[in-house]
Amino acid sequence: MASILRHSSRLGIRTANFVLPRGRNAHTTVAPYFNNEPSQPSVTTSIPGPVSREAIKELDSVFDTRSLNLLCDYEKSVGNYLADMDGNILLDVYSQIASIPVGYNNPRLAVAMSSKEAVDALINRPALGNFPPGYWASLLKTGILAVAPKGLDQVFTAMAGSDAIETSYKAAFIYRRRMEREGADFTPQEVESVMKNQAPGSPELAIMSFKKAFHGRLFGSLSTTRSKPVHKLDIPSFNWPQASFPQLRYPLVDNIRANAEEEMRCLAEVEDIIGSWHCPVAAVVVEPIQSEGGDNHASRTFFQGLRELTQRKGVLLIVDEVQTGVGATGKFWAHERWDLRTPPDMVTFSKKAQTAGYYFGNPLLRPNLPYRQFNTWMGDPVRAILFRAIIQEISRHDLVRNTAETGCYLYKELEMLALKFPERIKNLRGQDCGTFIAFDTPERDAFLKKMKTLGVNIGGSGETAVRLRPMLVFQKHHASILLEKLELALKDI
Amino acid sequence: MASILRHSSRLGIRTANFVLPRGRNAHTTVAPYFNNEPSQPSVTTSIPGPVSREAIKELDSVFDTRSLNLLCDYEKSVGNYLADMDGNILLDVYSQIASIPVGYNNPRLAVAMSSKEAVDALINRPALGNFPPGYWASLLKTGILAVAPKGLDQVFTAMAGSDAIETSYKAAFIYRRRMEREGADFTPQEVESVMKNQAPGSPELAIMSFKKAFHGRLFGSLSTTRSKPVHKLDIPSFNWPQASFPQLRYPLVDNIRANAEEEMRCLAEVEDIIGSWHCPVAAVVVEPIQSEGGDNHASRTFFQGLRELTQRKGVLLIVDEVQTGVGATGKFWAHERWDLRTPPDMVTFSKKAQTAGYYFGNPLLRPNLPYRQFNTWMGDPVRAILFRAIIQEISRHDLVRNTAETGCYLYKELEMLALKFPERIKNLRGQDCGTFIAFDTPERDAFLKKMKTLGVNIGGSGETAVRLRPMLVFQKHHASILLEKLELALKDI
Repeated sequence: MASILRHSSRLGIRTANFVLPRGRNAHTTVAPYFNNEPSQPSVTTSIPGPVSREAIKELDSVFDTRSLNLLCDYEKSVGNYLADMDGNILLDVYSQIASIPVGYNNPRLAVAMSSKEAVDALINRPALGNFPPGYWASLLKTGILAVAPKGLDQVFTAMAGSDAIETSYKAAFIYRRRMEREGADFTPQEVESVMKNQAPGSPELAIMSFKKAFHGRLFGSLSTTRSKPVHKLDIPSFNWPQASFPQLRYPLVDNIRANAEEEMRCLAEVEDIIGSWHCPVAAVVVEPIQSEGGDNHASRTFFQGLRELTQRKGVLLIVDEVQTGVGATGKFWAHERWDLRTPPDMVTFSKKAQTAGYYFGNPLLRPNLPYRQFNTWMGDPVRAILFRAIIQEISRHDLVRNTAETGCYLYKELEMLALKFPERIKNLRGQDCGTFIAFDTPERDAFLKKMKTLGVNIGGSGETAVRLRPMLVFQKHHASILLEKLELALKDI
Repeated sequence: MASILRHSSRLGIRTANFVLPRGRNAHTTVAPYFNNEPSQPSVTTSIPGPVSREAIKELDSVFDTRSLNLLCDYEKSVGNYLADMDGNILLDVYSQIASIPVGYNNPRLAVAMSSKEAVDALINRPALGNFPPGYWASLLKTGILAVAPKGLDQVFTAMAGSDAIETSYKAAFIYRRRMEREGADFTPQEVESVMKNQAPGSPELAIMSFKKAFHGRLFGSLSTTRSKPVHKLDIPSFNWPQASFPQLRYPLVDNIRANAEEEMRCLAEVEDIIGSWHCPVAAVVVEPIQSEGGDNHASRTFFQGLRELTQRKGVLLIVDEVQTGVGATGKFWAHERWDLRTPPDMVTFSKKAQTAGYYFGNPLLRPNLPYRQFNTWMGDPVRAILFRAIIQEISRHDLVRNTAETGCYLYKELEMLALKFPERIKNLRGQDCGTFIAFDTPERDAFLKKMKTLGVNIGGSGETAVRLRPMLVFQKHHASILLEKLELALKDI
């Protein structure tokens, strides 16, 4: 990945209204990435205001609006600032549930999406498995695969996080049975029973996930999601196991021994379940930081132990980087921080990539026959073009580094704020994780609402966490505004 | 729907290289919709030719190419003609697995996708459930909902056929438990057990599908897919029931009584399974024409009976129009042909819509709480804009009617051809179903290959069927070329 990023400036496109802090010192300048970005949030009505309230009523007649947060005016949104239909302008540290990478109305993405190449891809959408375009190999190599995690040089493309995860599970099951079959053909019993959804053709096999994990909400992915009851109630699921995810105590520096013991306990539980579950566990799936489940972290030692353990037991390790991937933690992939001796077997991505899929390296993870892992569209070339433009933008402005440095500043300032408001900022976490920072606060939902009235769009996770998910173009001066507003809200609530 | 389509010409965009046969007589003219379309296929190399072979080798190093059919040059493709990387130009009656609606490089779609609106939607992709754009209600009403099936005025948007189907299943399960709960809250036992994937929180409930059905390939949808073992082997599935789908005998006119009895038998089986399955059946899902499973048809009487039966039993009816929808059968929705007294509970769509989702009418199919049916993107505004442009194009050229009439011509000519080659064209089906026509032929795969050398890209379904899936811009003169090539291939094989 590094070599591609180093050379990607030659792929550059220049646009007029974009300030270009270049090279090594880019991050140390105060130049904003967007020269037309507001300098402050501006809230002039209640939220939702009168225009939005009227429009939401109209929308609700055809589309469920009970989870609606803001009715947005994307045309007026710029960089880190999100506009609503009443003209309010909010600093956005939620970023469409962590999925906007390089700012609203990024002019270089606009150039990429206005190109003939992009329009052609939109109006001539191929069934990629049967009729890929001639440029598909080159698009993959200069885009999705240019940032492939170390050791993983293949990709299966998908549309969103859920199908990326589910197809990786399918790959895991097919691989498992392939290894067990040792080259033998499907038996007549398998071929016959599978059409009735019965074993041996449709075997009992499991994916293990962790308590409080979130991996998506379709039937297979939801069976591994353990975030909240409301996500799962009334939906049939597979009888798959969950292990405890470490519940670390903060501050980490004061709880070293207890946390190490907690992680050992969780690893032992993983091993125990693999050995005792009523059917084989084909894979363990894990998020580098449990995001929807409340921003739960674990140490690199834990993940190294998990890699070692799964390898020893012949169980695949799937790392779900749908939320953590593409720079947000100050590394392009969060699992880079683990320094694994052997890479994960599969890594899923979506959100900030604006496309989706899973990376893998072992050629045996390609099924033994075509059409076993297949669907009509199998991804989306225009989104692959968009991801390539995002990668170029990240490279041009050194945005992963920007995120690491802004995150470092933000974390230190939050530590100070926590000293001032020890009852309101608890369990601050995300040190050295870029801007992927969270803390617990009492009356969390009221706090989030208060922040909105102060001009900051901010999200929660789990039951009590405030999670920061700014974009990669979030700079120190944005962090200062965020900190100022946080302090105001903390004083006020 | 009709009223919207009638008035949609006022939404028109004029472009230079597009011939505009307008109004009532449009379909009777010989004017092609694309004035730059080739007049004939042209094959000058083997397929794949030398350029493609080299490029496929390169692609295979990063992306599985074993299901690759043609390596395409979409820039050179026009209307009904698909170009490959060796300069071969094929008449395309497969249309990206039935997913291209109005021709390659349709200039009006190009205008729509080059618009500021489309580019903005691409680069500022919203999390629709939380932060919809202000224009979302209007886009839904002028696009996806302008063609909603009669009686269904709500939509849940999705990304592709599989997640449209799976979210409709989730809606069915949530609805079922809501009815059973009669307004009561979740019990503590439900809330606790669901996090362990256990009943009563994650209950045993089923979706019934039909033998040879195809509804997608993620875990829930694949549990209802019964097309081929290779689609299902080694993947865990839910213990859900399948009923027999009518196996009609052809020609229909000679088998009226036997076919009626067969359909009665299948309906009785549905009723029997609903009554005897080990857990409640929340919904029955059915395709109007089983497509991947071999183009299996049933009569309107069968579907009327299925609607009556499911209603009587308190079981939801989901009609999967992913492949049959958006005009291909000579109606906008294939199930319009059934003249149901009450509409299906949900209708899924994707493919030619270039977006996806499910329509519903009963407000109780919105879950009782927000976030029960939710995901990050929940669809895609740019694809909704594209579908709106497709709808306008269909309306402008009266393309559903064109498809009905071209299909009528094609079917009659195929009947004649079947008389000439009775051993090679068997079980011709799809009369009055637009161009959604199929027949069985021995040595089917060799036949498809032969057709390609003659310049026609054509697909199969099931074990023995040749399925025709041309676009809605497929006209009589295209059908004549297809018939000529079919006859050549039939003589030669």
